[in-house]
Amino acid sequence: MIILIQCTDQVGLVAAISKVMADADLNIISMREYVNVEANRFYLRLEIMADIINAAHVEAALLNVLPPGCSIFIQPAVKKKVAVLVTKEYHCLGDILLRNYFNTLGASVECVIGNHETLRSLTDKFDIPFHYVDHLDRTKAAFEEAVSAVLGNYRFDYIILAKFMRILSPGFVAAYPHRIINIHHSFLPAFVGASPYRQAHERGVKLIGATAHFVTDVLDEGPIIAQQIIPVNHAHSVTDMVTLGKEIEESVLAKALQLVLQDRVIVDGNKTVVFEN
Amino acid sequence: MIILIQCTDQVGLVAAISKVMADADLNIISMREYVNVEANRFYLRLEIMADIINAAHVEAALLNVLPPGCSIFIQPAVKKKVAVLVTKEYHCLGDILLRNYFNTLGASVECVIGNHETLRSLTDKFDIPFHYVDHLDRTKAAFEEAVSAVLGNYRFDYIILAKFMRILSPGFVAAYPHRIINIHHSFLPAFVGASPYRQAHERGVKLIGATAHFVTDVLDEGPIIAQQIIPVNHAHSVTDMVTLGKEIEESVLAKALQLVLQDRVIVDGNKTVVFEN
Amino acid sequence: MIILIQCTDQVGLVAAISKVMADADLNIISMREYVNVEANRFYLRLEIMADIINAAHVEAALLNVLPPGCSIFIQPAVKKKVAVLVTKEYHCLGDILLRNYFNTLGASVECVIGNHETLRSLTDKFDIPFHYVDHLDRTKAAFEEAVSAVLGNYRFDYIILAKFMRILSPGFVAAYPHRIINIHHSFLPAFVGASPYRQAHERGVKLIGATAHFVTDVLDEGPIIAQQIIPVNHAHSVTDMVTLGKEIEESVLAKALQLVLQDRVIVDGNKTVVFEN
Amino acid sequence: MIILIQCTDQVGLVAAISKVMADADLNIISMREYVNVEANRFYLRLEIMADIINAAHVEAALLNVLPPGCSIFIQPAVKKKVAVLVTKEYHCLGDILLRNYFNTLGASVECVIGNHETLRSLTDKFDIPFHYVDHLDRTKAAFEEAVSAVLGNYRFDYIILAKFMRILSPGFVAAYPHRIINIHHSFLPAFVGASPYRQAHERGVKLIGATAHFVTDVLDEGPIIAQQIIPVNHAHSVTDMVTLGKEIEESVLAKALQLVLQDRVIVDGNKTVVFEN
Repeated sequence: MIILIQCTDQVGLVAAISKVMADADLNIISMREYVNVEANRFYLRLEIMADIINAAHVEAALLNVLPPGCSIFIQPAVKKKVAVLVTKEYHCLGDILLRNYFNTLGASVECVIGNHETLRSLTDKFDIPFHYVDHLDRTKAAFEEAVSAVLGNYRFDYIILAKFMRILSPGFVAAYPHRIINIHHSFLPAFVGASPYRQAHERGVKLIGATAHFVTDVLDEGPIIAQQIIPVNHAHSVTDMVTLGKEIEESVLAKALQLVLQDRVIVDGNKTVVFEN
Repeated sequence: MIILIQCTDQVGLVAAISKVMADADLNIISMREYVNVEANRFYLRLEIMADIINAAHVEAALLNVLPPGCSIFIQPAVKKKVAVLVTKEYHCLGDILLRNYFNTLGASVECVIGNHETLRSLTDKFDIPFHYVDHLDRTKAAFEEAVSAVLGNYRFDYIILAKFMRILSPGFVAAYPHRIINIHHSFLPAFVGASPYRQAHERGVKLIGATAHFVTDVLDEGPIIAQQIIPVNHAHSVTDMVTLGKEIEESVLAKALQLVLQDRVIVDGNKTVVFEN
Repeated sequence: MIILIQCTDQVGLVAAISKVMADADLNIISMREYVNVEANRFYLRLEIMADIINAAHVEAALLNVLPPGCSIFIQPAVKKKVAVLVTKEYHCLGDILLRNYFNTLGASVECVIGNHETLRSLTDKFDIPFHYVDHLDRTKAAFEEAVSAVLGNYRFDYIILAKFMRILSPGFVAAYPHRIINIHHSFLPAFVGASPYRQAHERGVKLIGATAHFVTDVLDEGPIIAQQIIPVNHAHSVTDMVTLGKEIEESVLAKALQLVLQDRVIVDGNKTVVFEN
Repeated sequence: MIILIQCTDQVGLVAAISKVMADADLNIISMREYVNVEANRFYLRLEIMADIINAAHVEAALLNVLPPGCSIFIQPAVKKKVAVLVTKEYHCLGDILLRNYFNTLGASVECVIGNHETLRSLTDKFDIPFHYVDHLDRTKAAFEEAVSAVLGNYRFDYIILAKFMRILSPGFVAAYPHRIINIHHSFLPAFVGASPYRQAHERGVKLIGATAHFVTDVLDEGPIIAQQIIPVNHAHSVTDMVTLGKEIEESVLAKALQLVLQDRVIVDGNKTVVFEN
């Protein structure tokens, strides 16, 4: 049972919150708390030793002791659901499908939507519905409407862009605030936009990276969840970088999903507070 | 102002402790708490927004709410002091002296003791007393007695073994429990004892490491504070490994000192709980 | 087209070898050469811009200029084949099957042999033959005989132990010299043998690792191909370490396979010379 | 004895070059060769087992077999010399002075020039001349002229900008082509220019970096020699990032200096070919 809180900081918050828990006879397994002193802002993650709690009661009790404008997120102990959008590259989707099949993803994959047919056969193997939504011969609006129509048939907590190579419009993104997770194949903010490995190769960098982030309406500018790099050298062609990069794309997306699905990430503005293990 | 606590776990500890702080009108800047569920053990680090507190009063109030057998460590906001023991290699001592000179060590270096004269000239440059204690023509007991005699002239919180290549006897170690910090030039528990780089070279490993740990009476077996590795390959001779290894020895010792001197490390048995930033 | 050479070092080897190539009108794309000066031993990897060469002719010409006792390995440009042995854990096998399905493994998976049925359904999805060989109610000899019998029906270059949790006897290993690749879930030589994560947890290390190595008849003592580590802290239980460890096991095995399958690894005694990109 | 070569690629280059060495009775300890197939460009680093050679003779023999427009760099086996420019931060200079004092820098520090007096006392300790060149009350041109005047009194191979916080004009830079090495406190090309840590903090990145590069006339755009990163999280203030960043700035500059001073770096246009160990 996880509770995430963010609010203006003031003296005695931890005492007040933990008293609420003690009064409700809830044992705190782990408390992670962070105060941004400059911004006078308080963030808390509580892990409670209980699968079911009276969430309404606890929330009311918390609202009673927290400053106005606070945000409380009580996560029911049910498995989350995700929808996955892909284009042609298999590595991130493959990793997600494997974890899903063996119950280690921390969520269940409800459907896969591809703007190419390429990954249908892989998805089929794992008995997950695959929906092909063509982006050719369609306006962006029409394409996104078609995607939304498919999504409308499912219930899900998050949309995962697992190497989905279309840029989503602000309108689409706004419909799922802080619920779309993307993997970008560069160490943001370096190499925003298209062909980051080509850009990296031309600049002659000695490290390449990948960034998992929530999607907002500015391209590659959303709150960063996780980043990772891998060393390269002069001998790596753009193709080599693409190949190497896939390894960290898969790994950093897996890590970001784990953090988000375990309710370890609090979004505040354009940043994240991430309470790792 | 830092308070470290460890005790048996029970429901309501965080509430009780933070109520003590709130009652004393102390604002918690940062609280890091960890419960080892298997061992039913509770660890807490509190950073309080206050330079001076009535420590006796706070400790009494805490003892009142904590279970018996608890350990409370209230760290006065005064700069710590360290003594440094060395042999011939300069890199760790050099780094410590530089940080000390520019006030970024988080402690003041009170003296350097060498069982060789090699590092006197470096130490002299920074106006730190250097004491040469010869280990030749002496029994281990006599050598350690001489070291103790020098140390007896100084007040210090920790002894840093900055590539000090003599093994200290259990008797010496027992006099400074959890107060001697060593840098061992391997990724413990691999390559315990002498010539770890030679051992690593013979085994053909692809990574070499360094380990900073508290010294106990079993060689290289004390609680680990920090570890780091660096990649190597077939082309690295033992000498190359020694050279490369120095970089991480210096870096991992610096990190461990920072963690210890900022009161981020709680020792429990043969392990550490480390509350990093 | 790859040529690997190892021999005693002497003046003029590179000149002589590259003259052989020039005479055969073969263009060298990349030459990686290493001389172990202490051991007076010479290693070379040549990448030639040609898919088909007269291997017998080139080998004869090389033998003409190399010192006696040299070893020449001319790798025909055909896709390698592998057999995979597993127990219950899916992550390494899953990664291998995905890469195999999308033609990025650099080899084709001929069969999977499991001493449990657990991974049959995954293997079936990818239309790779799965053979269950029971180890219960059988002597080790009888078990290995049964495995050998299955392997006898396939042609393969390497056997991959993808978290295969049985120790193979020297007799079995001797039948496939430098052709069995294992992933061990520790940073060897730390934590040899069973339950390395439990050992790591008890020792309180701050990094855990994984090691890919060729199997020899001494447990966990074969030539190391690749190693990797991941940071852990006090809060990681043994179970957490097992979970985290799987990520690097998969990643380090994938890297080792890539190195071996691209003919970048020369084994000499208990060590490897690895010519990375 | 090191020889660096770059030229247009053609069949038989390695054979021809190694024949030149064999004819001159020079034993090749290590040969590192790289062909950029796309650009049809050949790079070679030869380490020869000889301290003194007839450089003119070898160069003539090489010119005879290499294509027109080739570049040959025969490095005499004499210790290199460096000049160091600094502002106020001590960490990079301190590291360089320590290595210089203990003869592990691979070069001798001839002088230190500061646009502040801050680091004079440190430099004095190591008996290296310190020159204060004021940038206040002076035009940039006058300032650079004064720096040049000081430099004119020394002989040196490289100028090291060890956290020198003034931007040098194209004219100044042009006087020392590929001979000025800078450490920039970001993972280039992210966060070019001033206050990269503030920029990184505002973007909420999860890794910060440092980049050592040759200085050209475009700010932070010169050929990259080495890069490194360090993880950060939400709890790191700008000040924390500055502190953490110093550790990798020092480490990545040290590594770049080692690579350059061991003649392992070939510059070609805006990129480097780096032959690491």
